[in-house]
Amino acid sequence: MKNNFSNDKQQVPPSGGFRGAFALLLAGGIGSRFWPVSTEEFPKQFHDLLGAGQTLLQKTFSRINKIIPAENILILTNSRYKSLVLEQLPQLSENQLVLEPAMRNTAPCILLSALKIQKQNPDALMLIAPSDHWIEDETAFRKNIETAFENCQNNDALMTLGIQPTFPNTGYGYIEYDKNTLSEIKKVKQFREKPDYETAKTFLSQGNFLWNAGIFIWSVKSITSAFRSYLPNMYELFEKGIPLLNTPGEESFIENNYAAAENISIDYGILEKASNVFTLPAVFDWNDLGTWGSLYEKLPKDEQKNAVVRAKTLLIDSHNNIIQTETGKKVVVCDLSDYIIVDHQNTLLIFPKKREQDIKQVSTVIK
Amino acid sequence: MKNNFSNDKQQVPPSGGFRGAFALLLAGGIGSRFWPVSTEEFPKQFHDLLGAGQTLLQKTFSRINKIIPAENILILTNSRYKSLVLEQLPQLSENQLVLEPAMRNTAPCILLSALKIQKQNPDALMLIAPSDHWIEDETAFRKNIETAFENCQNNDALMTLGIQPTFPNTGYGYIEYDKNTLSEIKKVKQFREKPDYETAKTFLSQGNFLWNAGIFIWSVKSITSAFRSYLPNMYELFEKGIPLLNTPGEESFIENNYAAAENISIDYGILEKASNVFTLPAVFDWNDLGTWGSLYEKLPKDEQKNAVVRAKTLLIDSHNNIIQTETGKKVVVCDLSDYIIVDHQNTLLIFPKKREQDIKQVSTVIK
Repeated sequence: MKNNFSNDKQQVPPSGGFRGAFALLLAGGIGSRFWPVSTEEFPKQFHDLLGAGQTLLQKTFSRINKIIPAENILILTNSRYKSLVLEQLPQLSENQLVLEPAMRNTAPCILLSALKIQKQNPDALMLIAPSDHWIEDETAFRKNIETAFENCQNNDALMTLGIQPTFPNTGYGYIEYDKNTLSEIKKVKQFREKPDYETAKTFLSQGNFLWNAGIFIWSVKSITSAFRSYLPNMYELFEKGIPLLNTPGEESFIENNYAAAENISIDYGILEKASNVFTLPAVFDWNDLGTWGSLYEKLPKDEQKNAVVRAKTLLIDSHNNIIQTETGKKVVVCDLSDYIIVDHQNTLLIFPKKREQDIKQVSTVIK
Repeated sequence: MKNNFSNDKQQVPPSGGFRGAFALLLAGGIGSRFWPVSTEEFPKQFHDLLGAGQTLLQKTFSRINKIIPAENILILTNSRYKSLVLEQLPQLSENQLVLEPAMRNTAPCILLSALKIQKQNPDALMLIAPSDHWIEDETAFRKNIETAFENCQNNDALMTLGIQPTFPNTGYGYIEYDKNTLSEIKKVKQFREKPDYETAKTFLSQGNFLWNAGIFIWSVKSITSAFRSYLPNMYELFEKGIPLLNTPGEESFIENNYAAAENISIDYGILEKASNVFTLPAVFDWNDLGTWGSLYEKLPKDEQKNAVVRAKTLLIDSHNNIIQTETGKKVVVCDLSDYIIVDHQNTLLIFPKKREQDIKQVSTVIK
């Protein structure tokens, strides 16, 4: 069946022993705090921000592909990025793309993908992950995913990977888990929205709070069942399209129905309501690469603690800068420290790291 | 005579009434303090540093051409810049170029040019001027030049235009004139080399010191006579080539003899020795555009005193910067003041104005 993103081979992943393990990589964001590199036309996940020779999407795909066969990896993105995705991941067939015709947050696209996968394999397991995060230790990552898959194969559980917080970050949501759980997999008490600084400090001191990194694991059975319970209208809307999924009729069904779905996140729509939510504390080092400053943290530094991507630099009395250009650009900086210096195509940005949150706003003014 | 840079028309300049007024524009420098825009391959005078739609050479040529016919304007430059000059001043014939085969400071090229002109017109007057300075009031400039021409037509005088100093600049040579001269044209007492700051302050307080801007006026008769007296070896070297000047044999004569000339400036070789040296205080506003900072002084500013050439800027809490890019580049700067920001081709420079003198050294390191 040509229009089918799956085939027999996928049902036996190369390792791990999980029949029907699938992944959905979220690649529809804009990343406007990474302006001027990241733009609506060419967002963050499609760039080689680390100067690693691979874009963030390619790196993420390659990491996931060590656990899940390529044919079982779906990419969720906006219709306008279809050709970018296929260019960067030429091994994909078009059927592995889930193209949102409208921005509707995470719940609708997760349900749609789960239904597509379920139609292929009612026993499938599903990993959902952002395409633009930094994860260094791939073995540790794989270990976490396999633990979660095993749990979701045997239990009706909705799982997240939680990141051990290293400082009271006010930019992330937190997962509060039950202190009394002795096992590695923790029962989630509640999801907590981005806290203020004082609240974040109390979270850290309590010891049972993790950062919500947007990495989810469940069986298609458990997640579709949760949608039926907590977002029944959305379930009904998409349920009537099941006969068309993975067929040539899928595209027009999505086109005609997707925008009618509620604009709601999976966290808010499902996870905060369900009682079978669990978290597994991550054992790998993670960074959301949310800002130039967080990218700076993960890049190698010179003796003056400057992080340089691709530029040829002469840095005089200058420290703690992040400097990113296209290949081979010469950059001379004197008497400047703690700045973000980015030269990308027709735009130059010189911005203090401590005001990096303002870059998002700049990007809208400049457009 | 094809190989002749002159013709009958030139003998009657369009105005001013000076028979045989010629100019020699000096366009052989490197301007390495304007790196990365100015380079050995493409020096300062060939750039539109002001964003005025004309290069400095073109602006200078156009200013001089209001006083002296185009055919009487010679350009002194290095052989390697021949095609650059002809591209920027397509109205020139090749015979108007004096191409130095070797760097020999100002005396040799001035003598050579004077002999070429003298062979054309023994009564010619001659203006010598740098090609890369800024002069705003062209009418005032013209008035000064005409006063000097008139004096040199009637007297055996070697003249300079002196610039009224506005601050104790230690980067220029000074002209000390005789306080007792009542006329507009002052007798020069002596040339003074670049002073230290305290000396420069006493110069200014004395009131009879002018900046030496390298603008000279004399008759070919007076200057060749001075060379005969004060640099007789150089005169003899070039004298034997007079029959070849302005003929096809000129090029090989220069090629074979120029390097043998003494490496000496006109100031040191002639003007500091001659007794018939006079100066006319300039009535126009002048700037040598010697550094990014001096260019900054002459550019229009925004409300935050930023001077922007060609860039499209968004400047947040940033003051007193000079920002120069190629056409249409977008530049966003936040929390940065008193900097030189230059993006040129494959190079980006971010340098504090107060350390602008170090840019010359950077240019040699980067090469």
